[in-house]
Amino acid sequence: MSVTEIFDVRTTTRIETIDITSLVRSAIRKSGVDSGLACVFCPHTTAGLTIQENSDPKVKADLVGHLGKVVPHDGGYVSAEANSDAHIKSSIIGASMTLIVDAGKPVLGTWQALYFCEFDGPRSRRVMVRVIAG
Amino acid sequence: MSVTEIFDVRTTTRIETIDITSLVRSAIRKSGVDSGLACVFCPHTTAGLTIQENSDPKVKADLVGHLGKVVPHDGGYVSAEANSDAHIKSSIIGASMTLIVDAGKPVLGTWQALYFCEFDGPRSRRVMVRVIAG
Amino acid sequence: MSVTEIFDVRTTTRIETIDITSLVRSAIRKSGVDSGLACVFCPHTTAGLTIQENSDPKVKADLVGHLGKVVPHDGGYVSAEANSDAHIKSSIIGASMTLIVDAGKPVLGTWQALYFCEFDGPRSRRVMVRVIAG
Repeated sequence: MSVTEIFDVRTTTRIETIDITSLVRSAIRKSGVDSGLACVFCPHTTAGLTIQENSDPKVKADLVGHLGKVVPHDGGYVSAEANSDAHIKSSIIGASMTLIVDAGKPVLGTWQALYFCEFDGPRSRRVMVRVIAG
Repeated sequence: MSVTEIFDVRTTTRIETIDITSLVRSAIRKSGVDSGLACVFCPHTTAGLTIQENSDPKVKADLVGHLGKVVPHDGGYVSAEANSDAHIKSSIIGASMTLIVDAGKPVLGTWQALYFCEFDGPRSRRVMVRVIAG
Repeated sequence: MSVTEIFDVRTTTRIETIDITSLVRSAIRKSGVDSGLACVFCPHTTAGLTIQENSDPKVKADLVGHLGKVVPHDGGYVSAEANSDAHIKSSIIGASMTLIVDAGKPVLGTWQALYFCEFDGPRSRRVMVRVIAG
């Protein structure tokens, strides 16, 4: 039985994506599981997790930029909290992703990296990783 | 080996989100698995599952309200079924989510709850939960 | 311990959805796992995986048609690659989905099928399936 690995992510602006691939790799390595599935989980409701291209930084800019057009900060929301856009983006992007683990590493395509998506920062965030063998 | 737990959700309007956290907790408890991963699955194509804030009901209202702006009911769709918006929202929100299970409970952040998203109700719906140990 | 099954998907236009249900079923059967969870994974950053209706082909047309309105090909993006729309759609739809496996088969609702979503084809694509018992 493995345990849940947890790491911290410090975001520095309201909206950004942070490459957490190496942190997830490290958590999977620490689990000691060689082969199975990993659940990467974001315990926050104004952030999310996604898989995106790791080379062109403009792809990241376009992702958060266009999401901001589809779900604007000032969208005439009924909640008084002024972060309804962040909650909606969190549900669209998702808080949980499942990865295949082989040889103690997550199986990713050539261009894929794992990103923490901050939609209401700056904040101190956490990411949980749980790997099960099989 | 655990079995798939199933519970019913009765929706009462066309579009709404229903807190299913306690039902999922109960299904995980019934599985008898103390530690592992849980897959929560929606077997419908005009509904979905998401994780959102559990305190401010206006966040729920903003989520379904804004999704209705991005994917309007009358969006000039080619399907004659009049529920294409519901199908599209289902693919955006997703029909499956994976949770970490520790001490017989789903690991959730302080503000997180699990929601069934009805996009074409009112209907009788089902949710499936499968937990595997590891 | 099972291995990761991989199958090929050949897309023929820029944007389309391809029913991969029978390929996923076959991969799950090959794994030899009777009961557990399956992770279906897309190792590409301009494609995704979703669950949608299997009967009315217009539902597929409306899904990709409306996504193209929400995230247009020519959306004034900063990346020069001319496929930022495909990257954004990939993050919205998701690259990974988890299914429940019972009796050697994925548990799906009556109307559900599994789709590979091509957002920047035509290309040769791959899909990975990993099943773990439990």
